This record gives sequence, structure tokens and C-alpha cells, in this order.
Amino acid sequence: MAKQQQPKTKSSGLPARSENYPDWYQEVIKVADMAETSAVRGCMVIKPYGYALWENIQRNLDARFKATGHKNAYFPLFIPKSFLQREKEHAEGFAMECAVVTHYRLTNDEHGNLIPDPESRLTEELIVRPTSETIIGESFSKWVGSYRDLPLLINQWANVVRWEMRTRLFLRTTEFLWQEGHTVHADAEDAERETRQMLEVYRDFAESEMAMPVVVGRKTDREKFVGAEHTYCIEAMMQDRKALQAGTSHNLGQNFAKAFDITFLDQDQQQKLAHTTSWGVSTRLIGGLIMTHGDDQGLVLPPALAPVHVVVIPIRCKKDEDRAAAEAYLEPLLASLRSQAFHGRALEVEVDMGKDRPGAKHFAWEKKGVPVRIEVGPRDMEAGNLVYVLRTGGEKVTIGRDAFGEQALTILQQVQDELLARARAFRDEHTRLIDDRAAFEAFFTPANPDAPEIHGGFVRGGWCGDPACEEEVQASLKVTIRCIPLDGDLAEPFSGACVACGAPGLEGQPRVVWAKSY
Amino acid sequence: MAKQQQPKTKSSGLPARSENYPDWYQEVIKVADMAETSAVRGCMVIKPYGYALWENIQRNLDARFKATGHKNAYFPLFIPKSFLQREKEHAEGFAMECAVVTHYRLTNDEHGNLIPDPESRLTEELIVRPTSETIIGESFSKWVGSYRDLPLLINQWANVVRWEMRTRLFLRTTEFLWQEGHTVHADAEDAERETRQMLEVYRDFAESEMAMPVVVGRKTDREKFVGAEHTYCIEAMMQDRKALQAGTSHNLGQNFAKAFDITFLDQDQQQKLAHTTSWGVSTRLIGGLIMTHGDDQGLVLPPALAPVHVVVIPIRCKKDEDRAAAEAYLEPLLASLRSQAFHGRALEVEVDMGKDRPGAKHFAWEKKGVPVRIEVGPRDMEAGNLVYVLRTGGEKVTIGRDAFGEQALTILQQVQDELLARARAFRDEHTRLIDDRAAFEAFFTPANPDAPEIHGGFVRGGWCGDPACEEEVQASLKVTIRCIPLDGDLAEPFSGACVACGAPGLEGQPRVVWAKSY
Repeated sequence: MAKQQQPKTKSSGLPARSENYPDWYQEVIKVADMAETSAVRGCMVIKPYGYALWENIQRNLDARFKATGHKNAYFPLFIPKSFLQREKEHAEGFAMECAVVTHYRLTNDEHGNLIPDPESRLTEELIVRPTSETIIGESFSKWVGSYRDLPLLINQWANVVRWEMRTRLFLRTTEFLWQEGHTVHADAEDAERETRQMLEVYRDFAESEMAMPVVVGRKTDREKFVGAEHTYCIEAMMQDRKALQAGTSHNLGQNFAKAFDITFLDQDQQQKLAHTTSWGVSTRLIGGLIMTHGDDQGLVLPPALAPVHVVVIPIRCKKDEDRAAAEAYLEPLLASLRSQAFHGRALEVEVDMGKDRPGAKHFAWEKKGVPVRIEVGPRDMEAGNLVYVLRTGGEKVTIGRDAFGEQALTILQQVQDELLARARAFRDEHTRLIDDRAAFEAFFTPANPDAPEIHGGFVRGGWCGDPACEEEVQASLKVTIRCIPLDGDLAEPFSGACVACGAPGLEGQPRVVWAKSY
Repeated sequence: MAKQQQPKTKSSGLPARSENYPDWYQEVIKVADMAETSAVRGCMVIKPYGYALWENIQRNLDARFKATGHKNAYFPLFIPKSFLQREKEHAEGFAMECAVVTHYRLTNDEHGNLIPDPESRLTEELIVRPTSETIIGESFSKWVGSYRDLPLLINQWANVVRWEMRTRLFLRTTEFLWQEGHTVHADAEDAERETRQMLEVYRDFAESEMAMPVVVGRKTDREKFVGAEHTYCIEAMMQDRKALQAGTSHNLGQNFAKAFDITFLDQDQQQKLAHTTSWGVSTRLIGGLIMTHGDDQGLVLPPALAPVHVVVIPIRCKKDEDRAAAEAYLEPLLASLRSQAFHGRALEVEVDMGKDRPGAKHFAWEKKGVPVRIEVGPRDMEAGNLVYVLRTGGEKVTIGRDAFGEQALTILQQVQDELLARARAFRDEHTRLIDDRAAFEAFFTPANPDAPEIHGGFVRGGWCGDPACEEEVQASLKVTIRCIPLDGDLAEPFSGACVACGAPGLEGQPRVVWAKSY
């Protein structure tokens, strides 16, 4: 009697994405052991597997920042309240969501309970940095004296805090980890060149390493960073067809230079006001990775960032002699794999000699999204073979042990390419040219409002340029303009009507991207 | 007429160490462009050159932690006040120096000034982590279920805040960067083994990479970490003969396991209380590096951690054709050097084509402590040679360009060894066996109290075991017991009298190390 095949979804124990995407997301994080909520409201604990992903993201981006001439530095966690006030828009943007330090000591009250010591009240409150333009601006005003000091190209890896009422692991947390680039330039052209260069660094990182296709564009004034002249962004489509803002690059013009007196003596002996930029990506990228590639079996990781590239499951490893035989057989393979590097990082290989059955191991590693799983049984060993299967699916392949070592990098790159191609196809499938309001509303409205299925996507449509339209569409449909595309076909001027109000589109502006978003 | 040689100290513009060590320290940091004070009281800005050192320290230690089985993770910046209270000693130790978050929003008062919004008062205040035993303990209680989960070996790279009234760059700042290891074990033996293992990791790192010799020992109960069963440490002697505690490793026994309910089901089906450890080093190590090796000309860096291993100064580089010639001549050397790795890190080579005179460049790079300086003039180029000189001193050496490439790693290791040997000789020279109180007091008392010259050092002397003696000696001489040595000759039992009170020394205990300290 043939053993009945269980439906695949069942084996993972995860909700199907199509049934409950938010629950699926939370459960993937849990079963892959990436992060959890903490006892501190809105703050997450990043567990070793999730943190290893962040380390890989960091290492890769850090090399890109250094290759473009940036140096790392570190600035204070605290920002004096008065600094925030110096750039008015910036202060208004962050005042509503910041952690405020008011005392520097605890003491015991009459019942022996710890309370903030009233004697230690700060004369000026400190804000836990929500971003560092202000505190870094203060330093830069001292660092920049003459045109010889420019451009000044600095990056910081740090934690930041923005008080959030509704949080979701990786996507929106009160504390998160990020990098923030901060640069100073002699003129507007150089600042703009830098802003665009770092946007391109992010785009290339997202596509080459995360296998996450992005639309590159400019934010509307309503959506730009508080205090910026303009903000560029990369926007990705998640599998529930919502947009994720994955990275931003801001041309700050002279706003912060004015507020913090960043001036320099130019070659013509004139004292001039500098131009600044800032740009950042955060642990939110991990949320983007999960929602771009994950499936109903769990996490799916692009090899370029996966903490483990290859897992090897010996079919027999309960007895000492079986383990010894498997170890001896695998030794040359492990040596070969570990001496190779994929996207600049040595291959990480795990051999699972644990006590669980091979099937249980298979599901456990599948949930963790490891790109390649190898199985080796006694017959494979006799024949000098192994069996591998890709996390992206497909048949089991039997191949010579040594041949696999030789082809590993090619196989990994195939997985990497396949993930990008799939994500791109998915995004394109759910991107529509829509020109009339009725179709627009229908696209963004679930058929059954009581059990909202996955719906919508990216609409490329006209916009009249009026923020009132953005506001109205957000209020009625929870849809916003994600960006005004910058590149290629997407950037072709479009003279059609605003999809919201029907007024003519802005001269020379392309169709903009409308979507629901995280 | 022979040009008069300026005294060397003069050229650096630094105070001589022998005249004013604290000023020298501050000035070295300034001229080497490593860090500066910030607008936030007690918080420093770590500038790119200082941060590059920290990155090198991080990378090296991180590899050592991973090689001993630890994984990185990340826990919240904030600690609920009640968590601190759960371990009584711990709370008492940190309550006096912690930043307290009381509000999560700012608002405008009637004058338009930002104030903490009274509506946003937290019901429970949050403490900015001074260390994370408590918040991590809370997570560990969830992570540990059975003996199979043990040992649990975690490390975190993070910023921490301890409110300091008197701060000094790198050595004592309100915010600093560090790593904190946190581990959980099934029994006392395994916790002790881990505590000692990480102490040994720190010792080997200090000596092999920082070229900073350390005494390895145990803290007295008075000096141990608040909440620990006992604390081990590495103690180095700075050039002003004060001790610097450079790293600590704590066996926390079951104190935090009790406070945070870290229990596990053991193989015998009994629910048991776990044992925990913690261990850390911080940006303070950079202060230790400066004060171990720096000289009156500026910073001196061990090659294993130097951001730049070799600087090349072409003697002629004003005209385009001179620069082109120098570049062509240096190209094979740079390729050769950059393809080599010293202590696991690719060689960093800077070529200084700037507009300053060669002498000015020489002094600038000397201040930054670059281990090897190369000069190449037209005659060297004709002969296929270069001239190099070591930051540790000695003659200029003329050598073939390609021969230098071949010998670079050997030369760098010689510098590394020389630095360790010098520091060890210095420490030994200023370490004394002292058995009577009068000699002890004389050793720690400057001859001229109005202009206190550098004096004292390490005293190896007896101790009766009474904390009252420690307290009295600290009050009268500012001298404390740095550690009870653990290793080698230093650990030999000593039955002599307490150097403070004359009572018999503790049974089986060696001479302890007394010193002034940072």
C-alpha cells in the first residue's frame, strides 16, 4: 500500500499565506527562530539566526559603503532636546514618538522602591536618538572648516528608538538597528550626486544580494523625510502585494547646514553654507526578505545572505560507527565547500547529526530557509554520490560527491537568480496601469470585506501633484503614493489624468506608483 | 652649515608624558584624530580613525567568540525598572548611575517650547541598559527548557550607559560601546569552565593582538561585579604605572537564574536551577592601547590592530608626472602588500600624495601611530629600492622594493613582538615585592605633592582578607587590590603579613596586586 502523501502545507504547521498573511509572517519568524517580542513594549529580541542574517547584511553593505569612500564613526545615543528644535520640521516629525530621558539616577522611596531621584532631574531632557542628523550636524560643524575637508563621507551603525504604538517584528519596532550615512558637500550638485549614488547602492544590494526587485523613485513632498529637500527610496512588493519602503536616501539641501552652522571657506575665500545628505536601511530589510521569498513551508533565503548555505543530513547517524563513516565520507566535501566563497563570504555548511529522524530534520531546515539540502545514505556513499534538493523546489538530484563540490557556486547562483526572477515576475504580475478611479478603487478593495483576501498591488497611475489627493486616497483606501519612479520605462513622462481626482497630471512627471504599504 | 636638529618632542607638539600624562593622553587622541567630547555631557564622539581601531578589535574578538561556540544576538536597549530590582545587589550597584526614560513623547508648551508630554508618562520607567544581565535573563528563562538547550552561549555587541560625573575619552564615558557575553550552564563546574575560558580569550587577545601584557586574576569581593559569585579580570599597567582593568569575566552562580527563573529539566527528570556567566570588554581597550604604547611623538599602534599598516610617502609628488612615476613604481608593491594578511586581516596601505612637505607628512603619520613608514625618492626608484622606518624607532633601512613586499609580514610581526616585549619590561620594572607598610606608602607617594610626577606601580604584597584594609588603603593612598593572581609564579601561596595591617595573610592565597588605577 502506497503511503499517503500529506499535503505539504500541513507538514510545516504554518498558516497558509493565502489564508492569513500576517499570522503566516509571525509564525515564520517563530519557527525559523529569528526573533521574538520582549518584556519591553515594542522592543524585539533578535535571536541568533535572525541576527546572523543582520550580520551578513551589515558586512555586505559595509563593504559597499567603504568602496564608495565612506568611513564609519560613532555619535552619542542621546540628543539634547534643544537640538531637535533647531530644525523645525524635523522636530515636529519626531516629537510625537521619542523616548525622553529626564533623570540620571534612581533612589529608594520610603517603602524601599526604586524611583527616579528627584535630585537628579536633568535641566535639559535628552532624547534617545530617533535618527542622528542633529547630533551629527553639531559635530560636522566643527569638522568642516575648508573646502579641503569636503566631501565628508561618514556612516554609523547604531540602534535608534521611535516610539511605536502598533509594532510588528522587524517591520516596525520601537527600537531597531540600522545604518545612517551622513555626508557634507560643497555644492548642491555634489550632494545630489551622493544622494543618488547611495540610492543606487541600495538598489543593487536589494536586487543582487536580497534577490528583492525594487522600484527606484522619489517620494512626494508629503512622504519625504522631515527636514529633507527631497527623499529617494527603493520600494519592494511583498507577497501580500503591499509595498515595503526598504531604504531611503535624502538630499537635505542646506536645511541642517543652516540649523547647525555647517560652513566652509571655499577656494574663492568665501565662507559658504554646505549641503548635506543622509541615507539609511534597517533591520526592516529582514522583514522584506521574509515576505519576498518565504513560502508555506517557511523561510526561503537567498544564498548571498543565508547564515547557512548548505545543510547535510546523513540518513544514518544514530550509531557511533555510522556517524564516523558519514564524517569520513563528508570530510573532503566539507573542506572543498568551506574553501569557497559565494558573494564574498565563505560557504557555511552544517552537518546535522542530531537524534531526530531525517524527515524531521528536513522540515526543520526547510523552515529555516537553507538554500541547499543534501542527503547522504549508505548507498550514496558506496557509489561516491550524494542527493541534493533546492529550497526553491524541484526534483532531488543525485550527483557525485566531488562533482557537487565543484558545482556548488553555480548551483547557489542559480538559486539566487531564480529567487530574483520569481519575485520580479510576481511583482510585474501584480502591477497595473490604471487610469480611472473606479478601476483604481476596485483594484484596492477586497471582494469580501469580512475575510479580506490578498488583493491589490502596485498601480501605475497619474497624479495631479496635489497632496490633497494623496490624503483623500489614503483616508478612503489606505493607499499612498510610494514613489515617483526614476529609472527606465517607468520614468517616461505621462500626461494622463490624476487617478484620484481626474485633473491633468503634472508636466513631465511619469505615472506614479500607488499602493498599500507597511 | 648643518641644519640644527629640533628636539623630537617639539615636533609633535605634544606635552611630554613625564611632564603631564593626563594632558599627553588627551592630546594624543586629538592629534591622532580618534575621538572628541560631544555636546552631550559625558558622551564621546568616536571619529573614523578611532572607530576603525574599534572595528578591528571587534572583528578579531568576534572570531574568537565564534570559535568558542558563541552566537551573537541582540536584546532591548531599555530595561524595565522592576527588572533591576529583582537582583538586589545588582540594583544597588547600578541605581546611582542610570539614565531613566520617563516619557515617550514631546509636546509644545504654551510658549511653543518642546516639553515631555505629561500625558505620555510611563507607568513603569525604563532604564537605558548599564549592562544586560536582567533583560537577557528574562529571555533566557524562555529559551532554556531542558538540559538539551545547554550550554546556551550568547554574545551581544551594544552600547551601554552608566552616568558618570567625571569622564575621560575611552576610559570612562557615560555611553560606551562594548560586548557582553551571557551564558547558561547546567552546573557550577561548566559555568566556572566558561568563565575561565573567556578570561583566557581576553588574556590572549590582549597579549597577542594588543601587545598589552596583563595580570590575570580574581577580584576581591569588594571589587567584584554586583550580583556575581566572583569576578575574574585582566589588569594591565599603563605608562603612568596605574592599572587598567581591561576585561572582566563573571561567574554569576545561580543569582540571576534565581531572579529570572532560569530553570531546566535535567536528564534525571528533575527541574533544576541553571548557572550563568557574563563577560565583557569595551571601548576602554582603546584607552589601554594608547597608554600602553604611545610615546611623546604620538600614538604607537600594534600592527595587528592598526587601521593602516604601512604608509608610503613619495618624496616627489607635486607635479603630475612625478605622481604618475611614483604610482607606476609603487603599483606592484601595493598589489603585493594588499594580497597579504597579518593576523587574519588584509594589509592596509596608504599612499600619501598630499600637498604637504614630506617632513610634515612624516610627523602626521607618526602621530597616528602607523607601524611602518616608507619613503621613496627618485634615486630609490632608479635603484629599485625604498627606505622604511619603523614607528617603534631604529635606523632608516634601504631595501629592494620587491624584497620589502616579501618581508612585510615578518617586519610587522617584529614590531608586534617588540611592543609586547617593551610593555612587559616596563611593567616588570615597576612591579615590586613589598612587605611593610612604610615602604608601601613611600612607593605610592609622590616626592613632590604639588607637581605629582609619575610614581608607584604594581605592588605584590600580602593581604589579610579583610575588606576594611582595602577600604582604609584606598582612602589613604587611593590604592586598591587589582586582583588576586591566578597564573604561574604570581599565584604561589604566600604566608606573609598583610601589607596594610600586618595581620597574617589568607591561607593558600598568593601575594595580591595593589595599585592605583583608572
